Amino acid sequence: MAKNKTAITPTREQDYPEWYQQVVKAADLAENSPVRGCMVIKPWGYGIWENMQRDLDKMFKDTGHENAYFPLFIPKSFLEKEAEHVEGFAKECAVVTHHRLEPGPDGGLVPAGKLEEPLIVRPTSEMIIGSMFAKWVQSYRDLPLKINQWANVVRWELRTRLFLRTAEFLWQEGHTAHATKEEALEETRLMLDVYADFAENFMAMPVIKGEKTEGERFPGAEMTLSIEAMMQDRKALQAGTSHFLGQNFAKAQEISFQDSEGGESHAWTTSWGVSTRLVGALIMTHSDDDGLVLPPKLAPKHVVIIPVLKGDDTEQKVLDYCESLRSEIRELQYAGRPIECWIDKRDVRGKKWDHVKKGVPIRLEVGPRDIENDGVFMARRDQPKASGVSRSELLETLPDVLQQMQDGLFERALQMQKDNTKEFDNLDDFKKYFEGDKPSGFALCHFTDVPEMEEILKPLKVTPRCIPLADNDTPGKCIFTGADTNKRAIFAKAY
Amino acid sequence: MAKNKTAITPTREQDYPEWYQQVVKAADLAENSPVRGCMVIKPWGYGIWENMQRDLDKMFKDTGHENAYFPLFIPKSFLEKEAEHVEGFAKECAVVTHHRLEPGPDGGLVPAGKLEEPLIVRPTSEMIIGSMFAKWVQSYRDLPLKINQWANVVRWELRTRLFLRTAEFLWQEGHTAHATKEEALEETRLMLDVYADFAENFMAMPVIKGEKTEGERFPGAEMTLSIEAMMQDRKALQAGTSHFLGQNFAKAQEISFQDSEGGESHAWTTSWGVSTRLVGALIMTHSDDDGLVLPPKLAPKHVVIIPVLKGDDTEQKVLDYCESLRSEIRELQYAGRPIECWIDKRDVRGKKWDHVKKGVPIRLEVGPRDIENDGVFMARRDQPKASGVSRSELLETLPDVLQQMQDGLFERALQMQKDNTKEFDNLDDFKKYFEGDKPSGFALCHFTDVPEMEEILKPLKVTPRCIPLADNDTPGKCIFTGADTNKRAIFAKAY
Ligand SMILES: [Zn+2]
Ligand SMILES: [Zn+2]
Repeated sequence: MAKNKTAITPTREQDYPEWYQQVVKAADLAENSPVRGCMVIKPWGYGIWENMQRDLDKMFKDTGHENAYFPLFIPKSFLEKEAEHVEGFAKECAVVTHHRLEPGPDGGLVPAGKLEEPLIVRPTSEMIIGSMFAKWVQSYRDLPLKINQWANVVRWELRTRLFLRTAEFLWQEGHTAHATKEEALEETRLMLDVYADFAENFMAMPVIKGEKTEGERFPGAEMTLSIEAMMQDRKALQAGTSHFLGQNFAKAQEISFQDSEGGESHAWTTSWGVSTRLVGALIMTHSDDDGLVLPPKLAPKHVVIIPVLKGDDTEQKVLDYCESLRSEIRELQYAGRPIECWIDKRDVRGKKWDHVKKGVPIRLEVGPRDIENDGVFMARRDQPKASGVSRSELLETLPDVLQQMQDGLFERALQMQKDNTKEFDNLDDFKKYFEGDKPSGFALCHFTDVPEMEEILKPLKVTPRCIPLADNDTPGKCIFTGADTNKRAIFAKAY
Repeated sequence: MAKNKTAITPTREQDYPEWYQQVVKAADLAENSPVRGCMVIKPWGYGIWENMQRDLDKMFKDTGHENAYFPLFIPKSFLEKEAEHVEGFAKECAVVTHHRLEPGPDGGLVPAGKLEEPLIVRPTSEMIIGSMFAKWVQSYRDLPLKINQWANVVRWELRTRLFLRTAEFLWQEGHTAHATKEEALEETRLMLDVYADFAENFMAMPVIKGEKTEGERFPGAEMTLSIEAMMQDRKALQAGTSHFLGQNFAKAQEISFQDSEGGESHAWTTSWGVSTRLVGALIMTHSDDDGLVLPPKLAPKHVVIIPVLKGDDTEQKVLDYCESLRSEIRELQYAGRPIECWIDKRDVRGKKWDHVKKGVPIRLEVGPRDIENDGVFMARRDQPKASGVSRSELLETLPDVLQQMQDGLFERALQMQKDNTKEFDNLDDFKKYFEGDKPSGFALCHFTDVPEMEEILKPLKVTPRCIPLADNDTPGKCIFTGADTNKRAIFAKAY
């Protein structure tokens, strides 16, 4: 590719949303399916999700959670039980009304066997899991109950974008029940910490941990915590949420227990989740105008070896060299697992750019000349220049190089977040910051959670993202009303 | 528990189907949900499935397959494309007809937003995956395409049994496309071998690899291979299938490619799957009248340590001893992973029997007296007697003991299968073997695949399970018609 020419058209600057779609396509991560709003996650994209699952799952288990599986369907009557929850989730969902197809008059198939009660394809599982918790919890000895589920969910969406917003998506949902309010609050915070740890140390994506304002809470929750990340177009993306549900769901579903003194209490519940949306966040945080850039910890494969075949008698020698190099690389460990390495022997043009666009962290090229020097030609996805390196040095430094890349991606993203977070005490400046369609960033402002705020924010297409946990007691005046307040929130345009 | 009394009532001999339900319940594996036909898989049951997934997934990847994810929904028109497939799958399925719930006249919610085309919740994904393959395959260079999906599927079932037959179940479905018939046939056989390897070496469940007769084939397949296992009631259970689909699906979906000479051909496809049904098979193969028995390779946890607490000043010493023992055990490896061990400190009665019923392979009890001797009291789930063992011996032999248990379970099951497989050349003996409801077994007989066979088998409730691959050329006479034939099949009552 010639200088100044990029592998992805348009560039981020030219058209960010379209750039995103083109990166997803060029890296062969996913595509739209014939089913409206549902995506197909292709092997390279699914490989990223599998790595996310593996690392998150370990963190959930290390914090005392167990996996289980609950039904895909929820009886309609269950959704009618918790008023706010219905309001939030019952609107756009897939409704199963029949359980059979029969031959129709014109040779096709028609729905038959009407169900007595329609079933909803789960948009989230609070209600169905809660109904089981009600059976399982009798005594304080049965608590806490700490369950996680990996599953698919469906929310009928009109405007979809691969990974970011799809009708069906994959996620995990944690559901826990506790004997006391304090314990449930602790769990809610603990799981937010787990998400933040994962985002920063695995995704190399800096996040702000905070509490949602009332208008942005999960339907039925008393408190919603979230992690918010800044994408390269400076918009916010909510990357994970952890909800303290109080006793609301426990009361709607009769999750109650006999405490140690023999009294009867309702349990305190939480729920928390992250989804394949994280893959979208990962893409938008690190990728560049040549395609996907992956933090090594989540790359499905770390290293590709490209044999440079000249069509002469050196070919077998080059291939043998590649094979032995691969064996040695696979014996190395990075971040607790073997370094994944494969040899791309395909006889196709533009191979090198395939790997650039897919974000393979390290590309090694091996030709007859390199072998003579017992070395390889090495390119890092995060650096523009490639260079020769001896085999011994490569093997010695590879795990460190991967960690350098991981750290470098995080630092770069953190710098970007810092550079684009501004404090405002003046409403006019705040409005100017967000006006129009140009990239803005995060605004940190004192505020009070009042209706006026919504009215000012709406035309700006800005929402309060969260009240940062790390910043909860700085006196000042609400930017919207001038009232005294100790609370500040992050405001931004968001995905 | 007193002698001659069992932890599970009824026993296998008294009422096998009810024994099965009671084992599932006592081991806390799964239970029915409020949604008709859908089960809840509880942590101990899901832990077994997770282990199955981990080992199978590795085998799929080692044989060159990649994971991906396809939509939950299938447009109705897709199911109408392959005639035999429709016939087989379109009958009992969950049909989504609406995409919204709206407040109804009586305060409840009613389905709204009728879909132009109904969507079917996937009963299997040949049609939706095939439609993507049609896009992805253009040239012979795009082949083979070897994809696997881990997913939930739904088949509306009237009579359900936990794990064995449920409306929703979890499974994996492999889908591959090849340039030649030979390659597709090879894949079909390879994946059957993978399943047999998994069944025998991980589940400790001996299986017979064979080909299905025409009447038992997958709808739309040209050849279905299966592995068949014998349960302890001597019924057969089909534990995995691998289908050679010929060009049937490729033609219905236009999966075609340009070959190396520039000509246009249809691809040859295969599909293969195993499901949470395997958990049912595992239970029925090994468990006894005291509950679940697990092959150590698939046990969610291998060892439980029970501190014997006397309520005096020895308690802390006992707990410390247990902690240090656990640390040492977790450093040991069995079958390529750390030995999973936990300490059950609960203050409840009947703890020991909990672990027996759940099939924990090794139970260790540690009291003050044991510590003095630097030993533990050890019980193996596969042996009636427990005995003292020194700490050093325990740590030295634990991985071997687990492997002995694994091997022992396989040997016992294999003996049972051999003892209950009989050859028949006489139809009267064959009929007598299967008459009534008493346990029968497998019958190996010469046969020809003719309509008369079905008529004779139906009243006996017997089906041809498979034509064993290992036995495909022994001359003889068809037991049903007397015609000369070289083929033999296994006949049995089946799940
Ligand atoms: Zn301020
Ligand atoms: Zn014979």
